[in-house]
Amino acid sequence: MEVILGVSNHHIHLTKKDFKVLFGDVPLEVLREVRQPNQFASTFCVTLKTEKGVIENVRVMGPCREYTQVEISRTDAYILGLHPPIRTSGHLEESSPITIIGSKGTLHLKEGCILADRHIHLLPKQAELYGLSDLEEVDVLLPGPKGGILFHVQLRVSENSYFEMHLDTDDANAHMVKNGDFARILIKNE
Amino acid sequence: MEVILGVSNHHIHLTKKDFKVLFGDVPLEVLREVRQPNQFASTFCVTLKTEKGVIENVRVMGPCREYTQVEISRTDAYILGLHPPIRTSGHLEESSPITIIGSKGTLHLKEGCILADRHIHLLPKQAELYGLSDLEEVDVLLPGPKGGILFHVQLRVSENSYFEMHLDTDDANAHMVKNGDFARILIKNE
Repeated sequence: MEVILGVSNHHIHLTKKDFKVLFGDVPLEVLREVRQPNQFASTFCVTLKTEKGVIENVRVMGPCREYTQVEISRTDAYILGLHPPIRTSGHLEESSPITIIGSKGTLHLKEGCILADRHIHLLPKQAELYGLSDLEEVDVLLPGPKGGILFHVQLRVSENSYFEMHLDTDDANAHMVKNGDFARILIKNE
Repeated sequence: MEVILGVSNHHIHLTKKDFKVLFGDVPLEVLREVRQPNQFASTFCVTLKTEKGVIENVRVMGPCREYTQVEISRTDAYILGLHPPIRTSGHLEESSPITIIGSKGTLHLKEGCILADRHIHLLPKQAELYGLSDLEEVDVLLPGPKGGILFHVQLRVSENSYFEMHLDTDDANAHMVKNGDFARILIKNE
């Protein structure tokens, strides 16, 4: 079962309120659509800052959400001196503190920075076809000369989704795969 | 079969001649020993430079070798705008060009920059015990919440070695393992 790869570079989701603090009373403009329906990379970027380091040009994704969340890789975390937990979007309890700098303002978050868990978006009809369930974990085989298998890839079954695996730049670079490549979901014989 | 992990950050090996060009007529001092016998991190660092980017504080490893070789990760390669091949040490034909800056001089190499292949050092008696051969490839399981399996891990059997797997920072960060952690060699039933 082949799935297309969506490689997520570090990025940020913002509430409407936090977006306004960082950029003022302007609309969140679309730079380009991504594969998931209604989601997009915006024309805005922030700078991430901690006592240890700085990462510039971190893309603001849209539309605005009910929570503000920074998603980075383990490599980024070393630069920032952070130890963020591996989390599903929106689960931010005891995640890492971080400072976010926009063109008009700055936010100091006590929590909000995570390592995004590996996951696959799929439709209910696809899940049913292959006997898979929402929130189940699968293994995924990445091909190539630095190939391997990624464990703990969570399935997210929902109507309004595009069949795609999201992995971070560390996973992609370690295995030398890129956005738009294909991987194979290894379905256990249970 | 458990093996200790040695995580290699980007680093450089130099010939005596190139070391002298970069740092002058001084001895290559030991900063700290590494696990492989007689190998060490030196007190010297270089800067790597291309038209696209710069990476500072790249450690010079010792002792000097018969070839000058820069080993970086795929993440580093994006910063430098390079596409280095995956290679075993010393196999530098058609590897990437790079500029190396030391405290006393600069080298412009037409080739010399590689992505190091994943490999395991082991002794002949260990290879014999497990029925493994020099240059054979194995799969290695990395445990943990971002665990997985790395394919194409080459065995290097030699008398003067310490039993250890070398992987780069991309492989380590993707799977959230660190130097000194343990992994499991998956021996095929052939």
